[in-house]
Amino acid sequence: MYASRYPVISMEEAWEQVAAAIHRLPIVTRPLDALLGHVLAEDVTASENMPPFPASAMDGYAVVAADQAEERLVIGEQDAGLRQPFHVQPGTAVRIMTGAPLPDGADAVVPFEQATERDGHVRVPATVAAGAYVRPAGQDIAVGNLVLAAGTLLGAPEIGLLATVGRTEALVYSQPTVAVIATGDELVSPGQTPGPGQIRDSNSYALAAAVRTLGYPALRIGPVPDTEQALREAIREAAAQADMVLTSGGVSMGTRDLIKPILEELGTVHFGRVAIKPGKPLTFATLQGVPMFGLPGFPVSSLVCFEMFVRPALRLMAGYRRIWRPEQRVRLSHAVRHTPDRAEFQRAVVTQRDGEYWAETTGNQVSGRLLSLVGANALLKIPAGVDDVAAGESVIAILIDQPEAG
Amino acid sequence: MYASRYPVISMEEAWEQVAAAIHRLPIVTRPLDALLGHVLAEDVTASENMPPFPASAMDGYAVVAADQAEERLVIGEQDAGLRQPFHVQPGTAVRIMTGAPLPDGADAVVPFEQATERDGHVRVPATVAAGAYVRPAGQDIAVGNLVLAAGTLLGAPEIGLLATVGRTEALVYSQPTVAVIATGDELVSPGQTPGPGQIRDSNSYALAAAVRTLGYPALRIGPVPDTEQALREAIREAAAQADMVLTSGGVSMGTRDLIKPILEELGTVHFGRVAIKPGKPLTFATLQGVPMFGLPGFPVSSLVCFEMFVRPALRLMAGYRRIWRPEQRVRLSHAVRHTPDRAEFQRAVVTQRDGEYWAETTGNQVSGRLLSLVGANALLKIPAGVDDVAAGESVIAILIDQPEAG
Repeated sequence: MYASRYPVISMEEAWEQVAAAIHRLPIVTRPLDALLGHVLAEDVTASENMPPFPASAMDGYAVVAADQAEERLVIGEQDAGLRQPFHVQPGTAVRIMTGAPLPDGADAVVPFEQATERDGHVRVPATVAAGAYVRPAGQDIAVGNLVLAAGTLLGAPEIGLLATVGRTEALVYSQPTVAVIATGDELVSPGQTPGPGQIRDSNSYALAAAVRTLGYPALRIGPVPDTEQALREAIREAAAQADMVLTSGGVSMGTRDLIKPILEELGTVHFGRVAIKPGKPLTFATLQGVPMFGLPGFPVSSLVCFEMFVRPALRLMAGYRRIWRPEQRVRLSHAVRHTPDRAEFQRAVVTQRDGEYWAETTGNQVSGRLLSLVGANALLKIPAGVDDVAAGESVIAILIDQPEAG
Repeated sequence: MYASRYPVISMEEAWEQVAAAIHRLPIVTRPLDALLGHVLAEDVTASENMPPFPASAMDGYAVVAADQAEERLVIGEQDAGLRQPFHVQPGTAVRIMTGAPLPDGADAVVPFEQATERDGHVRVPATVAAGAYVRPAGQDIAVGNLVLAAGTLLGAPEIGLLATVGRTEALVYSQPTVAVIATGDELVSPGQTPGPGQIRDSNSYALAAAVRTLGYPALRIGPVPDTEQALREAIREAAAQADMVLTSGGVSMGTRDLIKPILEELGTVHFGRVAIKPGKPLTFATLQGVPMFGLPGFPVSSLVCFEMFVRPALRLMAGYRRIWRPEQRVRLSHAVRHTPDRAEFQRAVVTQRDGEYWAETTGNQVSGRLLSLVGANALLKIPAGVDDVAAGESVIAILIDQPEAG
C-alpha cells in the first residue's frame, strides 16, 4: 500500500542526474568592488607592462653600476609618483624611493642601508651589479600575458590583479539565490513554545545559514502547512523568485508525502530515494529548469544532504571548476558499526597527530541529533557494501573544516 | 642619515606585541538570522527535552512490541503535528508519520516497508523490539544540557540548534569593521591610465577583498596624497569610524616615510620593522586603542602581512579561540633559495600524492608579482637561520586554501 514508486538509486547515480540537470547561471558584468567570490567568465590579458617602467625595488640611490667614483654627487630625489627629468651619469646619483621610476642613465639601485650620504655626496660599495634592486618594465606582468583565466575564483590577489591591469569590472557567473521552504503542520517558529506534538522550525534557519556560508543569498519561506494548495503555491512562488529551491521534510514515504505529487505536477522528479544514510528520502526535481531538492526532515539528514548534493550543485551553477571538498584518508580511533546496504556519512573530528590523521565520531549518530554536527570537521564515508570497520582501519574523510592539531 | 629608528624584531616578538594590544570587541545581542559567522559569547543550555515527546523515527505503525496478534486493527493515523487521543492496546495499531508523537500505550514503530495493511488491518513481523524506531524524549538534547559553549563559531548546525532550543537571538562578539587607506602620490584609480611614473591603486581593492573574505565590512579610503596633513586627516577619520585601520605603502625607510611620524603623534608605534620576507617594513600602532597596521606597498608583501598578522588579529577581535591556519609538513618538489637573515614566506601550490604532500612554488617570488599568489594554496615557511633548502626536503606549509588532489 505504501510502497514507494521511486527506486532507491546509488549516490553516484543520483549525483549524475543532478549534474546533468544543473546549468551554469548567466554571465554578468560586475564592478571591481563586487567581484569577490565570483568565478571569472572571461580570459583577462594585460594591455600594458607592469611595472610600466623600470622601477626601484628599495629606498636608496639610483646609480650607474659601472661607475668607479668613490663619492657621487646627489643631484636630486625621485619619489614614487611623477617622473623627474634627472639624468644620472658617472659621478652622480639620485636619491630614489621604492616603486619610483629609475631615472635615465641609472641602471642599479643601492639601498640606504649600504650607503652613506654626507654633505650632498653619497658613498656606495665598490662593486654594484647592473640591475641590482631594479624591477625591469614588465617583470611582474608583460604586455599580452594571460593574467587570469576564465574559471578562476576571484579572491583578494585576483581582485588586486584586475585593478593593476586597469579593469574596473569583469565578466563573471551570476551567484545563485536559494529559496528555503520550511514545511510541516508540526512546526512553530523558534520564538514560540511548541504545543503537544509540535516542534520548532530549525531546518529553514540552518539551511539558510548553509547557503549564506557559501556567500549566496537565501530567502526563508514558511513554515508552510501540510496542505496541497499551500505547498503548491509556496513551491511555485519560490521557483519563480530563486535559482534553486530547497524544502525540508515531507518527502518520506508516508501518507503525508505531499511534496512529490506536487513536483510531478509542476515539473519533473528525477529521483525520490537514494542509498545514503542519513538521507534516504532525498528527492530531486526540476521545475521549468529550476532545480529543487526535497531534503529529509531530520536536521542532520538535511544538512548532510546539503553538503553532499546541494553545495556541489550550487558551485556548479556559480561556475566553479572545483566543486568537491578535499578528502583525506584517516584512521579510526574506535570501531564503527555499519550495515552494508547503503553509503553512510558519519560526523567526526579529524585530528592530525605525528603526521597521521585520526578520526573520532561525534557521539550518537541518530539523524535528529544536530549536536553530532557541532564541532565536526569531517564526514567519514563508509561505502555501501562494507561491514563494520574496526579501530585502526582507515576510511575516507570528507573535510568540511580544517583538521585539529593533535 | 636614513638609519631607521625602529629595530628589526623577530616575527614571534612582533606577534606577541600585536596580541598584547588587541582586545575582543564588545558583546552584542544579534537576531537568529544575523548570527552566522559570529562567535558565541554565552553558554547556551536546553530548557526542554528534544524531542519533547517520544517520537516516531520512521513512517509506519505504532504498536505494542509484546503484542502477539497476527493482524492488528488500525485505529487511526497520527501525523507529525497535533497529538491525537489514541490509545494503542494489543490487537491495535496506529499509522504514524516520521517525527509524530508516539500514541499512549505504543512502545515501538514498525516501518511501512516491513508491514502490510489490508482492509483496515496490518500484519507486522512476528518479533518487534520494544523501543524500535522510537526516539525517546530527550534523546537529542536533555533538559539542562550544555548545547553550545561560549567561544563556539556559529555555522549552520549551531544556528539550527539555537532555533531548536527556542533562541531567537544570542550574545555574540561584534565583528570588526576595517578601514583600508591607499596612500601614495603615484597612485591613480584602476579606471585611469597611469601617467609617467604612476601606477594604479590595487592594494586597497585587494586588502578590502581580504577583509571581506573573512566576512567583515571594509571601508576603502583614498588614494590619499603623500602630504602630512592629508595623511593625518585620513588616518584620524579612519580610526574614528573603524575598529582597525590598514594602510599600504609609505612605511619604508626613505625620506618619504610620512606615516610613522603621524602615528607617533596620534598614538603609539609598537614596532616598525620585522624580520620577514616579504614584509620587512611592517608597522603596527595603536591610536586611542584602535589597532593600525602599516602594510608594505608591494602587493604581495601587503597580502602576506595581512595573512600572517592582520587575519589572526581580526579573528582575536571577533572572539575566535582558534586564530591560525592549519599547517602541514610538505616536501619540496624543487630546491628553494633562502638567506638566513629572516623568515620567508614563499607562495606555493601544495598537492597531495599517494598520501604525501608536495609543494611547488608559484614562479618568481619578487614582492611586486601578485601573480605569485594566484592559484597558491599555501605559504611555505622557511625559518630565519636556515640556508637554501634542497629538493625532497620538508618544510612547514601554512594552508591558505585546500590542497590539490594529485
